[in-house]
Amino acid sequence: MKGSERIKVKRLPARGAYDRDTIYAILDEAFICHVGFAVDGQPYVIPTGYARIDDHLYIHGSSASRMLRTLSEGVDVCVTVTLVDGLVLARSAFHHSINYRSVVVLGKAELVANREEKERALEAFTEHIIPGRWPEIRWPNELELKATSVLKLPIEEASAKIRTGDPKDDDEDYAMNVWAGVLPISETIGRPIPDSRLGNGIAIPPHITSYPRKK
Amino acid sequence: MKGSERIKVKRLPARGAYDRDTIYAILDEAFICHVGFAVDGQPYVIPTGYARIDDHLYIHGSSASRMLRTLSEGVDVCVTVTLVDGLVLARSAFHHSINYRSVVVLGKAELVANREEKERALEAFTEHIIPGRWPEIRWPNELELKATSVLKLPIEEASAKIRTGDPKDDDEDYAMNVWAGVLPISETIGRPIPDSRLGNGIAIPPHITSYPRKK
Repeated sequence: MKGSERIKVKRLPARGAYDRDTIYAILDEAFICHVGFAVDGQPYVIPTGYARIDDHLYIHGSSASRMLRTLSEGVDVCVTVTLVDGLVLARSAFHHSINYRSVVVLGKAELVANREEKERALEAFTEHIIPGRWPEIRWPNELELKATSVLKLPIEEASAKIRTGDPKDDDEDYAMNVWAGVLPISETIGRPIPDSRLGNGIAIPPHITSYPRKK
Repeated sequence: MKGSERIKVKRLPARGAYDRDTIYAILDEAFICHVGFAVDGQPYVIPTGYARIDDHLYIHGSSASRMLRTLSEGVDVCVTVTLVDGLVLARSAFHHSINYRSVVVLGKAELVANREEKERALEAFTEHIIPGRWPEIRWPNELELKATSVLKLPIEEASAKIRTGDPKDDDEDYAMNVWAGVLPISETIGRPIPDSRLGNGIAIPPHITSYPRKK
């Protein structure tokens, strides 16, 4: 990982991590990123899905979208992924915090022109969000492939930032009669809602009933 | 709301909304935003808490942080808030999607210099994340107030983007023998984890046992 000055976690540096294992574990658990790019000096931050294949992050969207067109010109981009794990409730307002794991990737995105790589990325988007679904669905046809742009960003200049555990209060505040601790937050998957046009007799497949994503 | 060209939802414009009720409902339900700003042309996207008071969005952080210092210089900023509601599982890969509600606010942030407004914002950060907690905790002292910067951003140029409901497949794909529908995702609050240094006999207060935040 490139140890550039600008990617370093400067505030509370003990929370920073730069190893691929830590960074990839966060990228592989989440599935929504926030993509930052500037147009005429104005930053935009857009939520979108993504997938990781080896040391690249892939995003995709309509070939007509401003974000995809802007990014494919090779501008500087920042992709941030955040998992929220809990509310950190301290005795003092000042030490309230959030337990979280986040990753920031800086770099320049590149349009994926190679057909095979593009299809592999499209498969990865679906499989990252819901493993086991790709073999069951209709794959993209020529028109759909043309209408979709896929971009890749090397995971070279990246950092993770992680906060876990108890609140850290000032010494004199520990004597206060205030409940302190962590209120955990996790994502829960609800009961599948069938499409109103779902054909009769189509059962919920195992890749949905055993959906593994949990925070 | 300012109907600027750059804030308009251009892709799938039917998903865009510009009224304050819709935008504020999303801002009031979520509690993490992603703040985008550029330093020397490089965009950064940083997750942080926020609060809304009337027609302003407030964020805060260490007075020493790069983000707070950069934003207080009055640069262009983009604040994005995203709630993920479900995985949209279509019959074709192309029509897979996410049900979500997001808000984008563009503008320039301003340092809050007024003492009373700053304290009101600090209260709002805590109360937005966990209502009822502010009266029970130690409020910021002089040193803590100095160490904290609060910024406000007018909610003037803002849009919401919302996707709900069933997948939309191509007509000919509805005959496929593939389960389609939505897998709902929501945030769940777990059992409170007491601070390892919590004093004996301090019970979990009602503002935690009846924590109202649910997606």
